[in-house]
Amino acid sequence: MAMTDPGPRQKFRGLGVGTMKALERPHEETELNLPVADSVFTRILRREIPAALVYEDDTVFAFMDAGQLNPGHVLVATRRQVETVMELEEAEAAHLFAVAQRIARVVWAEFRPDGMTLLQANRPAGWQTVPHVHVHVLPRFEGDGVGLVWPRKEPPLDELRAIAARIRV
Amino acid sequence: MAMTDPGPRQKFRGLGVGTMKALERPHEETELNLPVADSVFTRILRREIPAALVYEDDTVFAFMDAGQLNPGHVLVATRRQVETVMELEEAEAAHLFAVAQRIARVVWAEFRPDGMTLLQANRPAGWQTVPHVHVHVLPRFEGDGVGLVWPRKEPPLDELRAIAARIRV
Repeated sequence: MAMTDPGPRQKFRGLGVGTMKALERPHEETELNLPVADSVFTRILRREIPAALVYEDDTVFAFMDAGQLNPGHVLVATRRQVETVMELEEAEAAHLFAVAQRIARVVWAEFRPDGMTLLQANRPAGWQTVPHVHVHVLPRFEGDGVGLVWPRKEPPLDELRAIAARIRV
Repeated sequence: MAMTDPGPRQKFRGLGVGTMKALERPHEETELNLPVADSVFTRILRREIPAALVYEDDTVFAFMDAGQLNPGHVLVATRRQVETVMELEEAEAAHLFAVAQRIARVVWAEFRPDGMTLLQANRPAGWQTVPHVHVHVLPRFEGDGVGLVWPRKEPPLDELRAIAARIRV
């Protein structure tokens, strides 16, 4: 894939079927007309921003996180520019994480870290900084300075069971 | 599945095919003979420890994290007691995360959090506390006190590309 002009389709996302339907039914929700800015990951995928690519298939692609908390820190993202993991098709999510696991195994063998953290963050409140779904494959080393604050609440079992009853799938 | 005596197979894991092979070839690696302690998750799966179960199939199961950083905090674990995600078959990893995503969608709809964090930790250096592979489905709220220290290094692009060349899959 060469660096090319993204063309009008990319500049005005949503000017497709959704827009036609909205125009046919002018009183409905027309938010599909709003152009969506290309994310930095979409621009990496289109080779508009240089990056160190690791993997690419029809659904996902992977590249070195420019922040490299530790050597071997990879991001795996969907080709489709979707904000959160909740919006993916189940098969798409399964493949995203299957590729993340495959890469984690290679990083594990090559960099021999002490640990491995897979992190998938959604929305700023969930630590997401780029609104394009992605998984961090982060090799970890003792004393690497990456930190987690984890305030456990430990509610009683009956409260846990009441919560579970609301989300049983 | 009722709470039952786990029986000798469970009490002395590894006294199966692996042990037989080891006994037939006494000079080879015999670590398969070591009994592996049942993890707290395996004991939850066997109903030896009470928990609030959410989901169960042939490969994975899910239950409320007793720590409940926020209401709706679920753990999804493999039935198979394996320490890290790197040791899973790719299809097993894909299914583990597919179920995590499915649960995340339900938690998202039911608890309407501000964000969602999926975390899969391996080895103590990677923040793992129970040596049995699992994914945290953690709904997030503004000001929930869960914290991340994320020291970005930002090496030059040629260094990123040198790293990428070592792990291309």
